[in-house]
Amino acid sequence: MRLTITGGDGFVGRAVVRRLRDTHAAVELLLVDRTFSEAGPERRLIGDLRDPAVLADATRDCDALLHLAALPGAAAEGSPVESRAINLDVPLKLIEAMQGRRLVLAGSIAVFGAAPAGPVEDDTVPTPDSVYGTHKRMVEIAFADAVRRGAIQGAVLRLPGIVARPAGGGGFGSAFLSDVFHAACAGVPYVVPVAPEATSWLCSVTACAANCVAALLGDWTWGEAITLPALRVAMGDLVATLTTRFPQACITHDEDAILRRVFGSYPRLMTQRADALGLRADPDISRLVSAALATG
Amino acid sequence: MRLTITGGDGFVGRAVVRRLRDTHAAVELLLVDRTFSEAGPERRLIGDLRDPAVLADATRDCDALLHLAALPGAAAEGSPVESRAINLDVPLKLIEAMQGRRLVLAGSIAVFGAAPAGPVEDDTVPTPDSVYGTHKRMVEIAFADAVRRGAIQGAVLRLPGIVARPAGGGGFGSAFLSDVFHAACAGVPYVVPVAPEATSWLCSVTACAANCVAALLGDWTWGEAITLPALRVAMGDLVATLTTRFPQACITHDEDAILRRVFGSYPRLMTQRADALGLRADPDISRLVSAALATG
Repeated sequence: MRLTITGGDGFVGRAVVRRLRDTHAAVELLLVDRTFSEAGPERRLIGDLRDPAVLADATRDCDALLHLAALPGAAAEGSPVESRAINLDVPLKLIEAMQGRRLVLAGSIAVFGAAPAGPVEDDTVPTPDSVYGTHKRMVEIAFADAVRRGAIQGAVLRLPGIVARPAGGGGFGSAFLSDVFHAACAGVPYVVPVAPEATSWLCSVTACAANCVAALLGDWTWGEAITLPALRVAMGDLVATLTTRFPQACITHDEDAILRRVFGSYPRLMTQRADALGLRADPDISRLVSAALATG
Repeated sequence: MRLTITGGDGFVGRAVVRRLRDTHAAVELLLVDRTFSEAGPERRLIGDLRDPAVLADATRDCDALLHLAALPGAAAEGSPVESRAINLDVPLKLIEAMQGRRLVLAGSIAVFGAAPAGPVEDDTVPTPDSVYGTHKRMVEIAFADAVRRGAIQGAVLRLPGIVARPAGGGGFGSAFLSDVFHAACAGVPYVVPVAPEATSWLCSVTACAANCVAALLGDWTWGEAITLPALRVAMGDLVATLTTRFPQACITHDEDAILRRVFGSYPRLMTQRADALGLRADPDISRLVSAALATG
């Protein structure tokens, strides 16, 4: 079986590759990215998927494709035209190029906008309020139509906040959700920009990669986007767990109203569709921390 | 004031031009279309908006633009890639090109899919079930985001069934809704493919053009799409009105289940947003018939 992973050198992409090496060593992988930070046994295609030749090479011979490459939220907000090209046009062209084959697209909880009003369930209507969430939502609608027409197999997976991303968090306004892990681990003083009561939907990159692989290798197709399971974590509980693990941690809070609204106001989450498909969140906050640090 | 009308030689476009000539003779018009069936005093740009040079010429000097050009529903369903280029990419590029200016996009009730379950109101969530409705819905979402960012003024107007389109109805599955007018008028026997109880949302092209002009020249901006007012007409009532007007009419019914579901199962329609903006449906079925025939 031949699989293509776009964003193959990204944070989630590398975790997916590790997961596939561990669980499905026989698959042939083609990794696509604009640069690669390390060598490896998999075939690599260096290029930009906005280039039609790169997109053709990425899709030509594979049985299934996992599309992770994206322009992150803060960068998308600053450059809507670039986001349209990367976060909308590329996935739409992948849907066309992968006709009749399996395609798994990384969506995002950003489609719900900041601070959804009530509990979020599978039938909650997305109301994006960012360029990133808007383009992710548009792709969901296009994918659903392609499934309706029988033109594609696979699914769109809405990823929650993935931790712990590498420090620095280029382009992600949610970087603090990962940076707090690195600061605690290193014993560096850190001010979390939301109050202890702030709640976020988090998933370790390990659990996220397992869900991506399950969707990529699965035999089911779902037209409507699938919200991935996540732990709803209060920032105070996360800090307490990290402090127990790293007694040298020195973490305080100083709330930024915008970050609180955008990344720290997530209500209860129910993901019946994903649960029924066997997709899983980290079982508890302690194991989320362990998994996040194992790959941070 | 300089206005551009795309699809300027189309059925709605020509009605908009007539309306503007009658009510706003001082505006400078640029009509854009791939061909023109007749000459006229307005400037004409012959070309395909998929060509970046044509799109640049169409948008360069205007204060406001009305985008009517589209690939109709049946044609879009048969050619999703072409629909993506025409019904999605072109409006998205118009949103970018018209930044800071006024843009009115022709949307469609097709975003609601066939046979909406209950009454349709402004907050009814669209659930498109066609390529055409999917692309129209994606454009709505992109437009709302551009308004949120302050990048554009104007609105997306969801057009109902417009009557009476020219006979033949290239690409529109709803052609029978117009063809029944022409057959009644000509005294040609005609079998309406839906039962007398079938209900559709109809608007004369005259009323539609008046609404388009009001939106184009208005000073209001609305991020969420505006469903235009329409008469909910039972096919039996329309046939009765036509038969009263044209005693030689010979119209019978023979229901096609698909056409009934897609074009003849429309529930109650409430358009508070449009009503508050002064947009209007034809006042009653008799005047709808008169207006439809005056321009058919």
